[in-house]
Amino acid sequence: MVNMSDISLEGGGLDAVRLAQALIRCPSVTPRDEGALDLVQAVLTDLGFDCTRLPFESPGTARVDNLFARIGTGSPHICFAGHTDVVPVGHPERWQVDPFAAIIEDDVLMGRGAADMKGAIAAFICAARDYLAEMGDGFSGSLSFLITGDEEGPAINGTVKVLEWMAGQGHIPDMCLVGEPTNPSHLGEMVKIGRRGSFNARLLVQGQQGHVAYPHLAHNPIPGLIRLLDALGAERLDEGTPHFQPSNLEITSIEVGNHATNVIPGMAEAAFNIRFNDLHSGESLERWVRDRLDAVGVPYELTIAISGEAFLTPPGPFSEAISQAIVARLGCRPELSTTGGTSDARFIKNYCPVAEFGLVGASMHKANECVSLSDLAALGDIYGDILRRLFAYA
Amino acid sequence: MVNMSDISLEGGGLDAVRLAQALIRCPSVTPRDEGALDLVQAVLTDLGFDCTRLPFESPGTARVDNLFARIGTGSPHICFAGHTDVVPVGHPERWQVDPFAAIIEDDVLMGRGAADMKGAIAAFICAARDYLAEMGDGFSGSLSFLITGDEEGPAINGTVKVLEWMAGQGHIPDMCLVGEPTNPSHLGEMVKIGRRGSFNARLLVQGQQGHVAYPHLAHNPIPGLIRLLDALGAERLDEGTPHFQPSNLEITSIEVGNHATNVIPGMAEAAFNIRFNDLHSGESLERWVRDRLDAVGVPYELTIAISGEAFLTPPGPFSEAISQAIVARLGCRPELSTTGGTSDARFIKNYCPVAEFGLVGASMHKANECVSLSDLAALGDIYGDILRRLFAYA
Ligand SMILES: [Zn+2]
Ligand SMILES: [Zn+2]
Repeated sequence: MVNMSDISLEGGGLDAVRLAQALIRCPSVTPRDEGALDLVQAVLTDLGFDCTRLPFESPGTARVDNLFARIGTGSPHICFAGHTDVVPVGHPERWQVDPFAAIIEDDVLMGRGAADMKGAIAAFICAARDYLAEMGDGFSGSLSFLITGDEEGPAINGTVKVLEWMAGQGHIPDMCLVGEPTNPSHLGEMVKIGRRGSFNARLLVQGQQGHVAYPHLAHNPIPGLIRLLDALGAERLDEGTPHFQPSNLEITSIEVGNHATNVIPGMAEAAFNIRFNDLHSGESLERWVRDRLDAVGVPYELTIAISGEAFLTPPGPFSEAISQAIVARLGCRPELSTTGGTSDARFIKNYCPVAEFGLVGASMHKANECVSLSDLAALGDIYGDILRRLFAYA
Repeated sequence: MVNMSDISLEGGGLDAVRLAQALIRCPSVTPRDEGALDLVQAVLTDLGFDCTRLPFESPGTARVDNLFARIGTGSPHICFAGHTDVVPVGHPERWQVDPFAAIIEDDVLMGRGAADMKGAIAAFICAARDYLAEMGDGFSGSLSFLITGDEEGPAINGTVKVLEWMAGQGHIPDMCLVGEPTNPSHLGEMVKIGRRGSFNARLLVQGQQGHVAYPHLAHNPIPGLIRLLDALGAERLDEGTPHFQPSNLEITSIEVGNHATNVIPGMAEAAFNIRFNDLHSGESLERWVRDRLDAVGVPYELTIAISGEAFLTPPGPFSEAISQAIVARLGCRPELSTTGGTSDARFIKNYCPVAEFGLVGASMHKANECVSLSDLAALGDIYGDILRRLFAYA
């Protein structure tokens, strides 16, 4: 078990910096946990939370552990969602420090997961501890943590299944704050109130292999594929909506797999991704794509995977509480944005309003991931103020 | 050494079928020889030819053996050119027989190299033997063999270098007949009097790698590559010439090498091949290609390799002798063509008029390569008649 003295200041209480360090020192690259959830559970148990471990596995996927922790039974129920898993180190030689040593240099904490998102988990835990201490017996709401170990991985045995379990147990919160690093370059500039959807497709054109000297005996699939891709690129999907950027299609790959200069290939395949806003759904986009491809008249095979639909938690009391807490601490109003990649918020939005605010993401998923100690302290203050505002407002 | 009894009929002389079988039984997949040239040399030495082995190697290439054999010192000097190397077997399970067993079934000789072109070598050797016997002391010309072991490979240490050596030794012939399988489906339908040129290019577009959710921070090279390829495909190169098909451009590959659906790739590369006629040269085509690419305005990198210029031996006495021999034996006039792939004729044309006639190529480079015994016999008769006509005409 975790030794609480490892993460407490001498003679003092729990400290966000030392908790973040202790979490980074668990090399919890998805799907490994390496003690990260034990550590969170130990701390939360110590603070009076009821903890439930929720390991899940399914055919063909690794077993992944998750944690749900709740204190209180009243309303409102506010949930903090996050993940203890981290992406791989990448090229270790690009790191100036051991990625799992959690070294502090010049008031910056360095390590894999510092920004995404062990720092935010540590900050929220300390903010919750302080808020609960402040309220004492006057706390009548519920506060919970949904912590998964499968956000950076396939996300099959993580938040989705924890939410199903929570629904079955009556643990669905009234609102959920996700601690992802939402700020592009400095703390407080961006809150996410939705996310674009993500549509992945593979487009295959069959031909007939042959020799370049005898093109009439072959059928080159590449010109047809190019015409299909041209048709997809000919037209913008939309011009954006009040809370969303324009939807965007990117051809991410074309592969033919032919290395012989004198051979006409038998097959050509492209992959593309569409990040789409609330004007579209995976279903409507499939129609949009097929209409344009069909018009070309080149036979094709299309394989589609929707990794998330677009969603929006419209600006309102929840996002306003977050914004005001940021203004109070940092003096600047955050942008309410729906830009960027996907996160587990895409699952949570099916159950309750969800917004995201965390650290600065500039270094996430890169070498030398880091967070400044002042950001970590400010984020803790903001999280605490958010709790005060949300519980007071309710 | 080769045992001549292996390849002679009991009590009889040399036989084209048994010589072809003996050659096929040498598994001479480029750059290996496996005794094939020894066999040819033994037979030609036996017939009175002066034989010179010409092994060549160069940095980064395998050592390849070659043979030049000549009989007579007078004019005209007629050369037969061919190769003893063969392409790999491919998928062995697609063969109904051992590819190197040279099995005869239903009057068809099966094996790798039967059509391309060990059968033709055997047929020409026997035709030469008969012709020389027929002429006896009356033979006042020169007959030679240029046999390489590097036609199916990089063709660096084969015919090119043998020709340089021949030039230095005063062995350049007055005309050269190449024994490649020129007939698409039945013997006698096609003589090649030239070949299109072949232009290989790789077209690279650099981009800036990034995440599909942040396209403004990346630069996707694929749309630019597609525009460049569109520009190359927008226009025919020409409409053909009296002896040539229209030139043809085929995009043979596009490779991006990106397997992550959420990543905008940093680079995209295409390969294309142009088979071109006598309206173009490698140099003029490079200008044609660059003009069209430059007009698009997308920065690109182009790497070019010309594997052969277009050439033509205009119809005349040489091709007429071949045609008449075919008419005499088979009753049909061959088409004088410049279609198809490249052959070592592209090197020989720099020294003397060259034409090509051999077996039926339908099975070449495929599983179950084969030649009918009747074609083999007819080809020997035609080769003999060609020799009679060419030496008589001179
Ligand atoms: Zn994250
Ligand atoms: Zn050949």
